[in-house]
Amino acid sequence: MRTDKDYQNRLYSYKRNIYLKGEKVGRDHPSFQPGMNAIAENFRLALDPKYKDLFTTTSHLTGHKINRFNSPPRSVEDLLKKIECVRTLAQHLGGCALRCGGMDTLSGISVVTREVDDELGTDYHSRFLKFLQHMQDNDLVTSILITDPKGDRSLRPHQQADPDLYLRLLEKKAEGIVVQGAKLFGETTVQDEITVAPTRAMTDKDGPYAVSFSVPADYDGVTILCKPVLPPLRKRIKAPYAEFGYPGITITVFDKVFVPWERVWLCGEWPYAGRMSSLVALYHRTSYCGCKAAVTDLILGTAALVAEYNGLEKEKHIREKLAHLAATAEQVYSCGVTGAVKAKASSSGTYIPDPVYINAGRYHAGMNIYHEYETLADISGGQGINLPTEEDFLSPELGRFSQKYIKRKADVSAENIWRLFRLVDEMIYSEQAGFWQAAGLHGGGSPVMERLTILANYDIEAKKKLVKRLAGIK
Amino acid sequence: MRTDKDYQNRLYSYKRNIYLKGEKVGRDHPSFQPGMNAIAENFRLALDPKYKDLFTTTSHLTGHKINRFNSPPRSVEDLLKKIECVRTLAQHLGGCALRCGGMDTLSGISVVTREVDDELGTDYHSRFLKFLQHMQDNDLVTSILITDPKGDRSLRPHQQADPDLYLRLLEKKAEGIVVQGAKLFGETTVQDEITVAPTRAMTDKDGPYAVSFSVPADYDGVTILCKPVLPPLRKRIKAPYAEFGYPGITITVFDKVFVPWERVWLCGEWPYAGRMSSLVALYHRTSYCGCKAAVTDLILGTAALVAEYNGLEKEKHIREKLAHLAATAEQVYSCGVTGAVKAKASSSGTYIPDPVYINAGRYHAGMNIYHEYETLADISGGQGINLPTEEDFLSPELGRFSQKYIKRKADVSAENIWRLFRLVDEMIYSEQAGFWQAAGLHGGGSPVMERLTILANYDIEAKKKLVKRLAGIK
Amino acid sequence: MRTDKDYQNRLYSYKRNIYLKGEKVGRDHPSFQPGMNAIAENFRLALDPKYKDLFTTTSHLTGHKINRFNSPPRSVEDLLKKIECVRTLAQHLGGCALRCGGMDTLSGISVVTREVDDELGTDYHSRFLKFLQHMQDNDLVTSILITDPKGDRSLRPHQQADPDLYLRLLEKKAEGIVVQGAKLFGETTVQDEITVAPTRAMTDKDGPYAVSFSVPADYDGVTILCKPVLPPLRKRIKAPYAEFGYPGITITVFDKVFVPWERVWLCGEWPYAGRMSSLVALYHRTSYCGCKAAVTDLILGTAALVAEYNGLEKEKHIREKLAHLAATAEQVYSCGVTGAVKAKASSSGTYIPDPVYINAGRYHAGMNIYHEYETLADISGGQGINLPTEEDFLSPELGRFSQKYIKRKADVSAENIWRLFRLVDEMIYSEQAGFWQAAGLHGGGSPVMERLTILANYDIEAKKKLVKRLAGIK
Amino acid sequence: MRTDKDYQNRLYSYKRNIYLKGEKVGRDHPSFQPGMNAIAENFRLALDPKYKDLFTTTSHLTGHKINRFNSPPRSVEDLLKKIECVRTLAQHLGGCALRCGGMDTLSGISVVTREVDDELGTDYHSRFLKFLQHMQDNDLVTSILITDPKGDRSLRPHQQADPDLYLRLLEKKAEGIVVQGAKLFGETTVQDEITVAPTRAMTDKDGPYAVSFSVPADYDGVTILCKPVLPPLRKRIKAPYAEFGYPGITITVFDKVFVPWERVWLCGEWPYAGRMSSLVALYHRTSYCGCKAAVTDLILGTAALVAEYNGLEKEKHIREKLAHLAATAEQVYSCGVTGAVKAKASSSGTYIPDPVYINAGRYHAGMNIYHEYETLADISGGQGINLPTEEDFLSPELGRFSQKYIKRKADVSAENIWRLFRLVDEMIYSEQAGFWQAAGLHGGGSPVMERLTILANYDIEAKKKLVKRLAGIK
Repeated sequence: MRTDKDYQNRLYSYKRNIYLKGEKVGRDHPSFQPGMNAIAENFRLALDPKYKDLFTTTSHLTGHKINRFNSPPRSVEDLLKKIECVRTLAQHLGGCALRCGGMDTLSGISVVTREVDDELGTDYHSRFLKFLQHMQDNDLVTSILITDPKGDRSLRPHQQADPDLYLRLLEKKAEGIVVQGAKLFGETTVQDEITVAPTRAMTDKDGPYAVSFSVPADYDGVTILCKPVLPPLRKRIKAPYAEFGYPGITITVFDKVFVPWERVWLCGEWPYAGRMSSLVALYHRTSYCGCKAAVTDLILGTAALVAEYNGLEKEKHIREKLAHLAATAEQVYSCGVTGAVKAKASSSGTYIPDPVYINAGRYHAGMNIYHEYETLADISGGQGINLPTEEDFLSPELGRFSQKYIKRKADVSAENIWRLFRLVDEMIYSEQAGFWQAAGLHGGGSPVMERLTILANYDIEAKKKLVKRLAGIK
Repeated sequence: MRTDKDYQNRLYSYKRNIYLKGEKVGRDHPSFQPGMNAIAENFRLALDPKYKDLFTTTSHLTGHKINRFNSPPRSVEDLLKKIECVRTLAQHLGGCALRCGGMDTLSGISVVTREVDDELGTDYHSRFLKFLQHMQDNDLVTSILITDPKGDRSLRPHQQADPDLYLRLLEKKAEGIVVQGAKLFGETTVQDEITVAPTRAMTDKDGPYAVSFSVPADYDGVTILCKPVLPPLRKRIKAPYAEFGYPGITITVFDKVFVPWERVWLCGEWPYAGRMSSLVALYHRTSYCGCKAAVTDLILGTAALVAEYNGLEKEKHIREKLAHLAATAEQVYSCGVTGAVKAKASSSGTYIPDPVYINAGRYHAGMNIYHEYETLADISGGQGINLPTEEDFLSPELGRFSQKYIKRKADVSAENIWRLFRLVDEMIYSEQAGFWQAAGLHGGGSPVMERLTILANYDIEAKKKLVKRLAGIK
Repeated sequence: MRTDKDYQNRLYSYKRNIYLKGEKVGRDHPSFQPGMNAIAENFRLALDPKYKDLFTTTSHLTGHKINRFNSPPRSVEDLLKKIECVRTLAQHLGGCALRCGGMDTLSGISVVTREVDDELGTDYHSRFLKFLQHMQDNDLVTSILITDPKGDRSLRPHQQADPDLYLRLLEKKAEGIVVQGAKLFGETTVQDEITVAPTRAMTDKDGPYAVSFSVPADYDGVTILCKPVLPPLRKRIKAPYAEFGYPGITITVFDKVFVPWERVWLCGEWPYAGRMSSLVALYHRTSYCGCKAAVTDLILGTAALVAEYNGLEKEKHIREKLAHLAATAEQVYSCGVTGAVKAKASSSGTYIPDPVYINAGRYHAGMNIYHEYETLADISGGQGINLPTEEDFLSPELGRFSQKYIKRKADVSAENIWRLFRLVDEMIYSEQAGFWQAAGLHGGGSPVMERLTILANYDIEAKKKLVKRLAGIK
Repeated sequence: MRTDKDYQNRLYSYKRNIYLKGEKVGRDHPSFQPGMNAIAENFRLALDPKYKDLFTTTSHLTGHKINRFNSPPRSVEDLLKKIECVRTLAQHLGGCALRCGGMDTLSGISVVTREVDDELGTDYHSRFLKFLQHMQDNDLVTSILITDPKGDRSLRPHQQADPDLYLRLLEKKAEGIVVQGAKLFGETTVQDEITVAPTRAMTDKDGPYAVSFSVPADYDGVTILCKPVLPPLRKRIKAPYAEFGYPGITITVFDKVFVPWERVWLCGEWPYAGRMSSLVALYHRTSYCGCKAAVTDLILGTAALVAEYNGLEKEKHIREKLAHLAATAEQVYSCGVTGAVKAKASSSGTYIPDPVYINAGRYHAGMNIYHEYETLADISGGQGINLPTEEDFLSPELGRFSQKYIKRKADVSAENIWRLFRLVDEMIYSEQAGFWQAAGLHGGGSPVMERLTILANYDIEAKKKLVKRLAGIK
């Protein structure tokens, strides 16, 4: 297992294929550092005696101790621990762990490669297990890359004016395949590997779009366009919250990229595209049942601390809001737990959580996220937004004003008040907050996707039957 | 184990102590029949091969097979089965099972009698176990009776102008105690036994109000004032939904009632009043995580069937609402499951579910119940409310109008349309629907109670600590 | 202008054409009395010095003083007074005024008959004005009848399996027309006249369904099937709230009914069906901006009184809910006022309120109605639902229990507590409450209809243009 | 009347008293430019033939044509035009007009100075009118400054550990007064004058805190600490939306500032502090009924354009959301209109809008603002957040990827797609968006303040009386 330094040094050694505001940059560009810090923390905790039981597990391939984020779940217990682990990590980072997506993608592919092989006699699964062992042995980090540009939303992949608007198979060769297109989102700037899966179910006319594979992040023909997310900028009053962040939103372009067969996981078998896409989503939404609960944990903790500093911690209407936040966090988490408890083994041995519960959990999180930001904005008033700048706060000349006029409860120091409301500002009013709002709503699938998934898996006929019996309808 | 006939015949033999609209009536009065039918169904299902595994269990006292509703949970599995059983029963009845409350009260008392004994050296628990065995051996049904009249809500029990506004201990005697007061709600008209527990935490000045006991439903000094709930009245087009209902809302008055020691479960030990009250509530809210999910199941099934009969089952906005209903049902249920999974054994051996999850589940149900009625009212339009009466529908003269003008989809018979919309009318627009709305909001404790309980059991300090670390506050 | 006695005596003299639970009954059947009382109150207030300025106006046809409910609005002031009048009346009755619909239908027809004449050279308008004068001179009450049975909702009128599922023109004759079909809803049991208008826009294939006319309520070929709405049943403790109610939900059947030309308002001119339908709806939604505000007024007043009797009137969370109710009432009303302020004269001289504001108001009311019931149920707890029956309360024997145990604040008499919570029970938990919930959601058009109407009248292109300019899009 | 250049040049000439991130800067610092642009636009439109009728009015003091933003409303018409003007301006700027607050403060002071004079025989009003004429004649811009730091929220002004935590009167002198303290918020960096009013009602012990006055923005003893709000940063693809913005959030410190009597508007008359505070708030919330409607207008227009570019403009669920946005905008605006229509003249001749309607409008806006952001985030998906940077989009090398993969509907150019989604990104996900969310919730007073104000002005007793009559309670 790697150290945080190993992880970073390897990244630094990669070929330059990232563009940031028009310039080609190395992975040591400061813009990626907050995201890299978040992943590095994962490596540190996996070696930390306090956390290692949660963050590591035993490989079912080698029997070696490995990072949990490279291990598809083999039991209900694994699924429960995964949720716990993600919640703990998100609480610790105050944001995205950046490593769940890879785990979730690997889990989904582990199931589908086996199913394709079983039914079509292909040989994807054993090759995938070799790749998985490579990931485990080298403790690598892979991205989740699902979302295609999609062009005109009212047309299917093969109907688009430009056939590349969904990533596609260009050519099959003896040693591998050639692919072309792009995938949106994903943290490919700070990860070792890129793993791609289809974004949706395909029809027989969309065959070339049923494609899945893995390549190194700096692979030939891969270009990453990165839109940075401004991290909290602190100069002198540092805090862990301001160290972690998002490493930029990417468009990862595949320009006639050749992928050898040992890294191909689906290649034209269109009936399995939807299966792979929905399973990756399912595993990722399972992670969300942990991480979204953590987001609420932090909003709740912050709101409670603000109320305390303002002398309002006993106000009923504030306590009512805190209780509602607590309920929301635990409702989301409960759906995750229940989805895990009701999981079933697939033919690959990887456990599949129950899609109804998992989607009900992610859906609930998505439906509440904006309201949670509103709750913290409500309880913290305009405070945070009107905090003196760090420079004004520390200025020998201005401090007599800036430190004087932010005081609240007499027994809380001006510095602690500043620290708390700076966190509020960064958490809900910053550019990064805007990004987290979008992620909270859409990450892992928007509420509309979860509604569709719930319906697809819910036995509505059984409910109608109950009603028919009660109504005396034959 | 008793048959449904045994149950009803025993009730019919009870002394007359119920008043209905000013008249003293027997338990064979038609007003109680829908409630009696609901409980009778429980007895039938317990003997039905298809359901008996769910509805029965083995007594830990005698090893005999007993009805699950007389058995405090002894494991996580028991708690999970209890939730399942309640959901199944409520789906089957289209309403309240009327037997959960008793089970939940017995569960709570089983825990607290042991705790009081352990700490104060009293001897409640062994006496209670004898009573419990009596309940099990004779397959009896007991009520839940918690809510006192409470008078002026801004005053504590001992501060009320009339000391009886909370039920209280009047006198301790060698053979037992004398109590006076009243309890609201509870289905004492169709149950064998009445079990009373305190409604809230008490202070040292409220000692006489910390009282719990059981007496037969027709016991000397017990008078039941019943306000009937108008059941669906059908004459010729019968349906199961219209057979079951609520047996009337009661004020059960205790007028200098003597209770022998072998039926007393708390008697002045005020520090345990809150513990008993909150545990009974906790068990009852656990039941709600099953039965409220069932309420939503039926609303969903009805809405889906209405959409189908109207030819609108593929409309996206309707499917969106169905998905939201499904999500709500399963979110509530998930909280129940998680509360059960995280349960712990008490000193009595009875398992106590986790209060945060259980309360988050019941809270979610309560917060959504009116909106669920709204959803069904929305999808079914004004239909149901404007259905021809049964007589007009069946009238040889009027049928050519009434059957003609209720037609919808050509291939659904007028009778089935009538049956479905009659169900809608009874389910959401009738007097009974008004009662179920109130019960859905307040039964087992209103949302405000669950918020308070969540806060009382939630580690907000831990969340503040997470935030302090992230903010760099020492 | 008529007295309340005149109104009732005339109704009593009508031919029997109403069926109630399979029986043909006269208009003196007790089931219609609560509705008749509500309309009679309108006649009384119109003669009451305190109210007459609001309830009467001057006919623009004759210059005589007439009831406002027979007068299409001729100015912004008229529209404002109409809203005020409806709000006042609904506050006074605690429910539906039962006379607005007729006014609103007459208003819509007054506009469209003139427009049809102007464009097609027909002669509807002058005949309509004669009918209107007849209504004014005799101070008659007409119904609103819009909603057809509609059969399969996915088919248009002419596509239905049974062509009568929308009311239609069967035959044109020299002296008039013959119509067949049925209309749902409407209070035709307690009104003098029946006025019919199309339920929706029609296409050229739906020509025969574009039909509007008026006939007396007991006219040949008209049969009324009535489903009663159980009114509050009080025997000894009377109260105004329990006197007024809904006179039953009707299906009014037209079985080959001949309508003379002087009472025909549209007859096959299909392009005007939608115009008439939407204008009648618009006027009716304008009324709702008054009456729904009144519904909220009463929910608010009841909630405030409950809080006071419970000793909780200063609790912040209750005051917060009262403020929210007040805001909702006044938001709905404000939309009505703004719709009136921005009204424009039609070619007939009748003023047409602005459809965007009126629909925004009715929409807001519909979106909030269930939540308002929930708020009162929340603040009043389970109280009301568990009130002793009238008989138990007044019983010499049981009063010592029933009056003792409903006491709250010491200085409020048991009778007043009973009176208040009986009102709560009747207002939110009774069969009639179920009906009002449905009416609050769907009456005058469901929220989905208002959304469609807003969009149809809203200049979205203008908003896109604002955005294009700001974005620099040409 | 001034030109935009006059306005800016005068600002540039002011003494340096602003600190930005620790440095003293001039008003020509780029950070203030977006805010200055917004105000400059007001000056331009006032001279624009298309807008001048709306943006100017006639001074009741001099009869000269003046900017509407320096004129307290003298009629219902003035109030209606003010709302219209603010809505138009906010639509035009895509954000805050930055000049309403001053108008609203002047309006409130114009009322209260006269009332104080009438009752206490002081001479504030005539001096204020001279100042007002000075503002009008020179076409100056004044700030609104209300909010004190407030320290411990559970303590009143005179109870704070530091007496300066509310701005206070230090000393009365023959020629004027000396004040000390600070005020939060306000756009003092881009305005000519600073006008201060109390933040809340005061008690007799809080006398020195009842203080109101005006001073030039660069006055001796005034120090402005500014926290910048990052504006949209565009280099080559310019757009009006990116030109306007917020000029930074300020703490304006008054360090022993001497104010001559001719600029003092309240000075220790504590019973009038609440009156002034609530009137300024009332006028400002009236402005919000226009500007918040405009915010919704732009969200709606953007969402509609996004749907169009995605090919989804006919999807029912999107149209439903657009209709809801339209309804919200017009409900807020309707409350403003109704508040204006029901306004009454004060003794000063300034018209006071009805507080219930105005607060109901602002409240509705505040309660919906987060949900509106959510709606746009929902409809636009993750688009916007993942847009190629300007540099990558324009790069000769990368354009073949970045322009290719953002295409949607074939007939919309890549540039227009970029322009639209860049606007989305700036509007809802940027640092400035975070600021607008806070302003949308709290600006002019948070929802909790409007609830309190509604209750303080609402006749709840009248509603209880309606209910008592209906219930038969004497």
